Amino acid sequence: MLPFEHTIELRVRYAETDAMGIVWHGNYLTYFEVARTESLRAAGIVSYRALEEAGIMMPVVEVGLDFFSPAHYDDVLRVTVRVREPPRARIRFEYEIKNAMDGARVAGGFTVLAFMDAKTRRPCRPPKELQDFFK
Amino acid sequence: MLPFEHTIELRVRYAETDAMGIVWHGNYLTYFEVARTESLRAAGIVSYRALEEAGIMMPVVEVGLDFFSPAHYDDVLRVTVRVREPPRARIRFEYEIKNAMDGARVAGGFTVLAFMDAKTRRPCRPPKELQDFFK
Amino acid sequence: MLPFEHTIELRVRYAETDAMGIVWHGNYLTYFEVARTESLRAAGIVSYRALEEAGIMMPVVEVGLDFFSPAHYDDVLRVTVRVREPPRARIRFEYEIKNAMDGARVAGGFTVLAFMDAKTRRPCRPPKELQDFFK
Amino acid sequence: MLPFEHTIELRVRYAETDAMGIVWHGNYLTYFEVARTESLRAAGIVSYRALEEAGIMMPVVEVGLDFFSPAHYDDVLRVTVRVREPPRARIRFEYEIKNAMDGARVAGGFTVLAFMDAKTRRPCRPPKELQDFFK
Repeated sequence: MLPFEHTIELRVRYAETDAMGIVWHGNYLTYFEVARTESLRAAGIVSYRALEEAGIMMPVVEVGLDFFSPAHYDDVLRVTVRVREPPRARIRFEYEIKNAMDGARVAGGFTVLAFMDAKTRRPCRPPKELQDFFK
Repeated sequence: MLPFEHTIELRVRYAETDAMGIVWHGNYLTYFEVARTESLRAAGIVSYRALEEAGIMMPVVEVGLDFFSPAHYDDVLRVTVRVREPPRARIRFEYEIKNAMDGARVAGGFTVLAFMDAKTRRPCRPPKELQDFFK
Repeated sequence: MLPFEHTIELRVRYAETDAMGIVWHGNYLTYFEVARTESLRAAGIVSYRALEEAGIMMPVVEVGLDFFSPAHYDDVLRVTVRVREPPRARIRFEYEIKNAMDGARVAGGFTVLAFMDAKTRRPCRPPKELQDFFK
Repeated sequence: MLPFEHTIELRVRYAETDAMGIVWHGNYLTYFEVARTESLRAAGIVSYRALEEAGIMMPVVEVGLDFFSPAHYDDVLRVTVRVREPPRARIRFEYEIKNAMDGARVAGGFTVLAFMDAKTRRPCRPPKELQDFFK
């Protein structure tokens, strides 16, 4: 089922703004993370929480972020997450964030996550559920 | 319409956890803030965003927090916010957070906010919409 | 050595501000936490990190916070932490934050932390080093 | 004075960790930001705070991040920031983070910031102090 795509909406919290009156740039990584979590849930595959409970962690190893127009407190953002390639030692998620009110492109980017055995903290293969789903 | 009560649900984000594996305690103030924002919207009165655009800010001046049982990544929390007394120079919101899965009491607390003129940064009276609603 | 008192200085980060142009209120709990960590280190007793490695966690169970005047990006804050009573099942830290530039009182408050066995996640007695120090 | 290089040290806060027991990846953008702020101060040029007060904002428009080995609570990190090219409409900062205890390479990356007139929120030229310094 590749490419895989899922979109969520979320509302900017006051705590996420900074003294410029806009969303502090690092908080977009939180939005990416929420979209990633919800996309796995929506795909009907094992949740990230269940993965951790089964002993697999997925630390972020690479990030890219581009900012196009700022978001403000109380804005509703539409975050689209995409997976285009089967996971191997790593999995790459791509993101696009638009303002749900006016459609303005807010930010884009990607994160690459590794699969890691929670006990040994060593790299491991992706769980079978993810391999079966993202192919 | 006092007492006023409103309940929202939100899901714990990974970024909100700490090395104990639970929600970092300061993040409950974010949950309170989200509940406050949504309660004003639900009440059909002017949104907090509109208040700021109209030149009124509401800085937090006092906080109380009690923790009963920890919340974890991906938990769904039910946050109830209450206003019991008419706003004067200040307004007091009370909160109760339960785990939506098992009903466990997670946290409780209150925040007191002042009304402040955004330009002069001096205390001001509560906006008429809030006075009319919370009486 | 009661009462115990220790003061640190820290500088407000941009990420800690909000759209009001001031420090977002929840970040004062981070400042309290940093002061707590450094006070244990300064006391020459076991560090909080070593406590965790020895299997003891100290979750926050109660918080009180009062805000007097706002702090801004790049302000230097002086955070004083005090312990007045010997720890039992819990330990109470009190805090006072002043602006190091003009001496203005910024915030005050307290946190109560429990002692918890990291494995069983049950309450436990305070570690001997803490008992010996705070008496 | 190009290339420009400056190194700071900071200690990982508990609030910056996540349920994996390591620094949550988005917090490295905070570390970059602190290093950037301190590098301008150390250079003896106008501080970022003074820039904002003079009506110039510097929103982040692009970010790249690579993670090599995780950092943990209470670790001391050494953050080196570099500027290699004169600022034009934008300025690029590069970063390298090492663990101060064992020298392990923790993370690297870059941020590109734009110059923006705070009133009009339109792009503007870099302030003369920055142009003179970074050449």
